[in-house]
Amino acid sequence: MRILRTIKQMSAFSRNARLRGKSIGFVPTMGALHEGHLSLIRQAVRDNDLAVVSIFVNPAQFGPKEDLKIYPRNLARDARSCRIEGVDAIFYPEARQIYPKNYKTYVTVEGLGNHLCGSSRPGHFRGVATVVAKLFNIVQPSVAYFGQKDAQQSAIIKRMAEDLNMPLEVKILPTVREAGGLALSSRNSYLSAKERIEAVILSRSLSFAEYLVKNGLKDADRVVSAMKQLIRKKSRAKIDYISIVDRETLMPLKKISGSCLIVLAAWIGKTRLIDNTVVKA
Amino acid sequence: MRILRTIKQMSAFSRNARLRGKSIGFVPTMGALHEGHLSLIRQAVRDNDLAVVSIFVNPAQFGPKEDLKIYPRNLARDARSCRIEGVDAIFYPEARQIYPKNYKTYVTVEGLGNHLCGSSRPGHFRGVATVVAKLFNIVQPSVAYFGQKDAQQSAIIKRMAEDLNMPLEVKILPTVREAGGLALSSRNSYLSAKERIEAVILSRSLSFAEYLVKNGLKDADRVVSAMKQLIRKKSRAKIDYISIVDRETLMPLKKISGSCLIVLAAWIGKTRLIDNTVVKA
Repeated sequence: MRILRTIKQMSAFSRNARLRGKSIGFVPTMGALHEGHLSLIRQAVRDNDLAVVSIFVNPAQFGPKEDLKIYPRNLARDARSCRIEGVDAIFYPEARQIYPKNYKTYVTVEGLGNHLCGSSRPGHFRGVATVVAKLFNIVQPSVAYFGQKDAQQSAIIKRMAEDLNMPLEVKILPTVREAGGLALSSRNSYLSAKERIEAVILSRSLSFAEYLVKNGLKDADRVVSAMKQLIRKKSRAKIDYISIVDRETLMPLKKISGSCLIVLAAWIGKTRLIDNTVVKA
Repeated sequence: MRILRTIKQMSAFSRNARLRGKSIGFVPTMGALHEGHLSLIRQAVRDNDLAVVSIFVNPAQFGPKEDLKIYPRNLARDARSCRIEGVDAIFYPEARQIYPKNYKTYVTVEGLGNHLCGSSRPGHFRGVATVVAKLFNIVQPSVAYFGQKDAQQSAIIKRMAEDLNMPLEVKILPTVREAGGLALSSRNSYLSAKERIEAVILSRSLSFAEYLVKNGLKDADRVVSAMKQLIRKKSRAKIDYISIVDRETLMPLKKISGSCLIVLAAWIGKTRLIDNTVVKA
């Protein structure tokens, strides 16, 4: 496995692969790899001739008061995990390579990025879309893999790739959870032991919503209210949002019909966590 | 020569070419091809294994009161020109293919697109950057060719390709002019015989500026004033802007030193024309 630290090295690797007719599976990450990432990496290795993982904590997607500086970083550990999974190359650039002085170009997906997580994280999804567009151009993958855990991010990237006619496929794989239900996230490492137990309420509220919908409750507002009530009763989590939305457009729905997405974000102490589930009515 | 009307056909053509290791030279146009376009096409044919020309009058780069509806269109004539020059494929999509319902993704190059032509054409360069990003992804060229005539557009596309790490080279070729100096433009067809003579003042004002700079005038404001005076004295052209700017950042300069760009836009009757020249001091 190679660790490529420059855009030039990564581009050469990809150009060479494409010339030899090899398919590239690509998993863009911010490192701090957990089983969620590894499930994407395994799929990339399985589906393609070559697998590339990028590790880049993208400054453009962090707000000025967010956790850019303390975001967990551990290249040695991540590289070990990638090697075990059969990854062919890690792309590990420095920020000044990705955003050189006088950097000016941004990609925005209108309407999908301003609400939900976009409300409390202005500019976040512009940063995500931009860095992913750049990484796609550098790595030139055949297939790129993202997690359903980041539902809004996944919808935005899928839409960007389609809208801009990017010559690749975007695959979204299921959220990986701890035994108790907590969705895996690099930010779980911020939680104290007590908070980690408290955080389980988020996935429990989603299971509760699934149960309500399965039993005939179709009114989105009433489902959301019931979830909020449960979370408030059972925890000290501060809810940022809970919303039931269309899976592709992420537009809020009044009535649950067909296949919808329930998305939420909440603060457990000083840690902001997100989770979501698909419900079918 | 093939005329490909769908994204699917164009992508298949390009994928096939790339798999066979063939380089693609690409000239994106809005049709109504003139000698300026043909100079780009000739270079694309000369430099590459295959040459592709796109003809697409891009709605996203026209303002609501602009000339989208009357913009000259003549596929038969353009196809004939392309065939003569040895073009391998014309990409000729319909607008609803490029911008399907619910289209949402836009590319912006900050700072380069809001002044000069961007002031009187808000959104124009966002539309240009977006469609060119899309065309690059569909055609997957090795080299793309643009004209120096559209100086701001060329600077923006060069910057976008670099910023987003697009795997291609952007080449800017010199403006082609009529014998009298008028820069070739598809919009020249809007001019009456009398206006066409009047329009020559634009290139003459640029030559005059070159003369002034060559003779030691380095103060940008004074050069611009002299140009304005000449144009007002010799014509009824309505000046939109005249500005002396950095060639890459397009930021206005106070002093002319090294290699700078003099850019202008003016109305000749109901037709808005642009022109520019590089001066060296």
